[in-house]
Amino acid sequence: MNSNHIYLDNNATTPLCKEAYDAMQPYWLESFGNPNSLHNTGRIAHRALAQSMNKIYTLLHASDYDDIILTSGATEANNTVLMSTYYQFIHTGKKKRILSTQVEHPSVAHTLEFLESLGAVIEFIPVNEQGLTTPEMLRSMMDDDVALVSVMWANNETGLVFPVHELAAVAHEFGALFHSDGVQAIGKLPVDLHASGVDFFTFSAHKFHGPKGIGGLFIKAKTPLTPLLHGGSQMGGRRSGTVAVPLIVGMSAALEVAVKNLDKNMAHMSYLRDKLEESISNLPDITIVGKDSPRTPNTSLVSFKGVEGEAFLWDLNEHGIAASTGSACSSADLQANPTFRAMKISADLEHTGIRFSLSRYTTEQDIEETIQAIKSSVSRLREISIVY
Amino acid sequence: MNSNHIYLDNNATTPLCKEAYDAMQPYWLESFGNPNSLHNTGRIAHRALAQSMNKIYTLLHASDYDDIILTSGATEANNTVLMSTYYQFIHTGKKKRILSTQVEHPSVAHTLEFLESLGAVIEFIPVNEQGLTTPEMLRSMMDDDVALVSVMWANNETGLVFPVHELAAVAHEFGALFHSDGVQAIGKLPVDLHASGVDFFTFSAHKFHGPKGIGGLFIKAKTPLTPLLHGGSQMGGRRSGTVAVPLIVGMSAALEVAVKNLDKNMAHMSYLRDKLEESISNLPDITIVGKDSPRTPNTSLVSFKGVEGEAFLWDLNEHGIAASTGSACSSADLQANPTFRAMKISADLEHTGIRFSLSRYTTEQDIEETIQAIKSSVSRLREISIVY
Ligand SMILES: Cc1ncc(COP(=O)(O)O)c(C=O)c1O
Ligand SMILES: Cc1ncc(COP(=O)(O)O)c(C=O)c1O
Repeated sequence: MNSNHIYLDNNATTPLCKEAYDAMQPYWLESFGNPNSLHNTGRIAHRALAQSMNKIYTLLHASDYDDIILTSGATEANNTVLMSTYYQFIHTGKKKRILSTQVEHPSVAHTLEFLESLGAVIEFIPVNEQGLTTPEMLRSMMDDDVALVSVMWANNETGLVFPVHELAAVAHEFGALFHSDGVQAIGKLPVDLHASGVDFFTFSAHKFHGPKGIGGLFIKAKTPLTPLLHGGSQMGGRRSGTVAVPLIVGMSAALEVAVKNLDKNMAHMSYLRDKLEESISNLPDITIVGKDSPRTPNTSLVSFKGVEGEAFLWDLNEHGIAASTGSACSSADLQANPTFRAMKISADLEHTGIRFSLSRYTTEQDIEETIQAIKSSVSRLREISIVY
Repeated sequence: MNSNHIYLDNNATTPLCKEAYDAMQPYWLESFGNPNSLHNTGRIAHRALAQSMNKIYTLLHASDYDDIILTSGATEANNTVLMSTYYQFIHTGKKKRILSTQVEHPSVAHTLEFLESLGAVIEFIPVNEQGLTTPEMLRSMMDDDVALVSVMWANNETGLVFPVHELAAVAHEFGALFHSDGVQAIGKLPVDLHASGVDFFTFSAHKFHGPKGIGGLFIKAKTPLTPLLHGGSQMGGRRSGTVAVPLIVGMSAALEVAVKNLDKNMAHMSYLRDKLEESISNLPDITIVGKDSPRTPNTSLVSFKGVEGEAFLWDLNEHGIAASTGSACSSADLQANPTFRAMKISADLEHTGIRFSLSRYTTEQDIEETIQAIKSSVSRLREISIVY
């Protein structure tokens, strides 16, 4: 079995960039110390940790008073924020409600379900037909019993971008904290945490060409937090566990590349994404989800009427193309796309979505081959379809 | 600043072994897929994950009905067991008590404090003057209100080995579950999870020459578990988050080397550790903690009367030797050694413990140099001591 030679599933995970790979190298075999150890081997690791953290603070526009804690990924960061909200506000009886959307990633959605089982009141701000939540919609649901509003920065299925800055301002009007899952934003959109006004922000290195197994959580200055992981008091007691120095070095290197060339990369990705969408838009009965809404430049969720997503995926795979029917998490269980449901897209289309997610490494040649493969596959599958 | 050329702090973290480093290589830049993705790039990652998991099950003697979930390390695994016990038994009102010892690692000890704040009743089985907990001591505290007994397999400070097999049997007599933090056991003691009778077992790759950022939790067949991380339902829904394939591949490779050559490595480490202890045992006023009790073969905790641990550590560091005053977690905050306190070792000795922790890579030359350095440093520090 060979890897797909065209990889258009970058919202599931990305290839590690060479810069991150190289940056990690000295920290595997040689400078392997525990940054909490006081001897030289430990101090070398500690220095690498400090330098990487500084880089991350600068690149994400966090201030020295803010906290960024390293986690094993976005799932842990999202769980940390939501469980902390429970312990800080709901368990203590101070507040009852948490507001979110129905298009959050399962690491938010399933944690909210868990909190509901513990007695939290979870409510969803509706999304409009563009799949977006507006500040007005949020305001109409707010009161001072809301502990937290959690709305993702950009959606992993559709690429739709939420008005996080305005939503955070509304949450703050009512004394609530605001969290944004920013996993799909980094490397695809400008992220200025200071300007955004968010209190919590989640990120995961493997979504921006960094290593798997590491991510982080931004916590605005003076924001209370109950840790999810108790222990040796690393990260100022907010996230215990031996720090994985090679991974944090790799993450900061990947972030640097992603942020430094952002404009160029955004232009490159949206040029290719638009080319893909234009070339297939003359096929009959297709829907490009969120085409006229603000989207990340790399993502295209397309539904081809009568073409079952899973079968389409296999056809593309045979052509050497990696795409997805939705988030990698759920693609193994063939569930209908929850984003489609939230956007009230007809049940007809539910099982027909294919997501193409590009990266800065995607080439024009990749896209041209993909366009050909889509065309031949769609006509083949529609020919044998019993519903089309 | 150069790394210490003699590294005797392997209980804090270990150098990655070449085998693990090599095994990870293909999974960084080439086979970078998300194992949950259905295309070939994902399936290649999935195959690597499955092969690594099989290896881990076999090497730890787990059965196919047991579960091993991957975590970011031992801290997460320990938090998972303890928080799950809270949600399964205490929050639901089924049981009230959790029994543990006062010499657990902070990732157990601090999580227990947190559970106490949530209403759990936490009680400590005493340790005797050998620093050990006996089955009789445990039995005298048991009743059917105990949800969990958590006792580490081997202590990180002293190397003392607890009678886990017998303790688990006592817990089971009273219908309680049994957890053991086995971080310091792997690669130093035989670990047969099936024979041990434990319900939960924690491990961390970077303590046995695997990569940092990964560990695991063994969960015996049919044992209930509330997940700590909710999300995309990886690991059968018991631990969500994109699986870090390179790290798990590295961990399984490291485990294989550690387990396959265990007898030889144990003999090598205990020969060198005993040589170290014998050579310094004729120095006046020294205490080797737990010398006549069952210990891991690599650990020696020694107290030199009148020699402040931190100063000693610095002297050794100047000689190029990395040692520790205790666990890396707490060595930065200069706290008195909690293990000493639990063992009722006199306050006099509390600030004078130095831990030498060897690995299979430690050489005879390392130990000879260390013996010389200890001798000259102890006499120098005692000369300038105001208390000795
Ligand atoms: C929007 C979003 N949030 C969270 C996650 C979870 O990330 P991880 O699997 O790295 O924990 C993902 C990726 O699957 C995602 O796309
Ligand atoms: C006995 C014991 N348990 C747990 C841990 C925590 O391991 P980690 O930092 O890898 O989470 C350690 C290491 O510091 C340990 O020695």
